[in-house]
Amino acid sequence: MNPFSFFFNSFLSTEKTVFRSLYNILGFPPGNMRLYKMALRHKSAAIEVRNGFKNSNERLEYLGDAIFGSVVAEYLFKKFPYKEEGFLTEMRSKMVSRESLNKLAQKIGVDKLIETPDINAAGKSVYGNAFEALIGAIYLDKGYNFTKRFIVNRIIKYHIDVDLLENTDNNFKSKLITWAQRERKSVAFEMVDEEHLKGRKLMTVRVKIDGAEMATAKDYNKRKAEQTAAETACKALNI
Amino acid sequence: MNPFSFFFNSFLSTEKTVFRSLYNILGFPPGNMRLYKMALRHKSAAIEVRNGFKNSNERLEYLGDAIFGSVVAEYLFKKFPYKEEGFLTEMRSKMVSRESLNKLAQKIGVDKLIETPDINAAGKSVYGNAFEALIGAIYLDKGYNFTKRFIVNRIIKYHIDVDLLENTDNNFKSKLITWAQRERKSVAFEMVDEEHLKGRKLMTVRVKIDGAEMATAKDYNKRKAEQTAAETACKALNI
Repeated sequence: MNPFSFFFNSFLSTEKTVFRSLYNILGFPPGNMRLYKMALRHKSAAIEVRNGFKNSNERLEYLGDAIFGSVVAEYLFKKFPYKEEGFLTEMRSKMVSRESLNKLAQKIGVDKLIETPDINAAGKSVYGNAFEALIGAIYLDKGYNFTKRFIVNRIIKYHIDVDLLENTDNNFKSKLITWAQRERKSVAFEMVDEEHLKGRKLMTVRVKIDGAEMATAKDYNKRKAEQTAAETACKALNI
Repeated sequence: MNPFSFFFNSFLSTEKTVFRSLYNILGFPPGNMRLYKMALRHKSAAIEVRNGFKNSNERLEYLGDAIFGSVVAEYLFKKFPYKEEGFLTEMRSKMVSRESLNKLAQKIGVDKLIETPDINAAGKSVYGNAFEALIGAIYLDKGYNFTKRFIVNRIIKYHIDVDLLENTDNNFKSKLITWAQRERKSVAFEMVDEEHLKGRKLMTVRVKIDGAEMATAKDYNKRKAEQTAAETACKALNI
C-alpha cells in the first residue's frame, strides 16, 4: 500500500464514520455532508476560507436557532390550543434554552461528533450550539417540512417531556409559599428597583422570609423575576 | 327588504370588504377567512370563546413572530454568504424590530383593517403585532414555503431596504470618532460596570468627549452598548 492510498483510505474511513454516526442520530441519510460537517465544526477547529471568513458552525447555528424556534413555536401553538401567548412564549423559552439544548445534544450523541482540538476549552454551550447548527444543516439539506417532522417526531417526541416542562421551573413561588405556610413563616415579595433599559423596565425583586432577605432577581417580567428569586430561595432552603 | 336580509347583506358586505382589502394587501385570495379575521382582531375587540380564552390575535402574533423571524434569518443567511453570525443576528433584529414592523404594517395598509373599538388606545405596537399575526395566519392557511415566498417577494423586496438598513443605526461610533477628529476633540469609550444577570454579562459603557461624560448605555454585547452610547452622544451633539 503506498502512503497516498493509506492517507486516502483513512480519510474515507473518517468520512464514513461521521456519515454513519449522523445517520444513526438523524434517522435519515444526510445528503450534503459538507453542510453537516460544518455544523459540527466548532470555531476552534475552523480554518479561514476567504478573507477572514472561517468555516465554523456559527452561521448554521444562527439559522438553526431560528428554524428550531419556529418549529417549537408551532408545536406548542397546536399542542395547547387554549393557552395564551404568554404561556406559549414561556414554554418555548424553556424548550430552546441553552441548558435544554445542551442536554438534548448530549442525549442524542451530538457531543461525540464535535470537531474541536479541545472540547473542554470550547465553552459549555458548545453542544447546544452544534445541535442548532445541525438543525440549520438539515433545513438547508432537506427543507422546512422535513426539518419540522424531524424535530417533532425524532426530537420532541422522544427527548423533551413537554408536560413535565410545563410543571417545572415555574412553581417555585407556590412551592415557597406552601412551605412557608406549613412552617408558619411569612413570605414577602418586594419590588426593590426598576431601571429603564432600551425602553423596557428591568425590575429587581426581593423575596423575604420572616423579614430576612433570601434572594433577589432581575427580569423584564415581574412574575419571572419573582420566580427566579423564589427558585434561589427554594434552593437555599433545600425545599 | 325585511330587517333580517338587511342585517345579512350588510354583514356580507363587511366580510367582502375585508376579503377584498386583504386580497389587495396579500396578492393572493385568503383561504380560511376566520384565521385572517382573528389576526386583525386586537384584544380590545376580542370576546371570550371558552373559559376565559379570548379570540384576539395574540396567539397568531406569537406564531407569526417565529415564522417571520426564521424567514428573515434564512433570507439574510443567503443574501450575505460571507458575513458572520454576529452581523446576521444584528441585521435580523433590525428587520424584526417593533419599530420596523409598525412602519411596515402601515406601509402595506394593515393598520386600516385592525379591529378595535379605539385604535389610539390600543398601544403603539398594535400595527406590528397585527402584521405578525397576519404572517401567522398565512402560515396556517398556506404553509411555510408559501409564507416564505410571500415575505421575500412581497414584503422584503418592496418594503425593506436591506442595504440601507445595513448602513444605518450602526455607524454612530465611527460617526462620533470622525466628528471628534475633525473638531480636534478626544473620544473615549470606557467600561464602567459589569453585572451578571442570568449567567450573562450586562455591561455598562460610557462615552466621554474631552474627558466629560456624554452618555452611558447597557447591553449584553459590548459593541452594541458602545453603539447605543455613541448614538445618544451623536444626538446630544447634533452630529
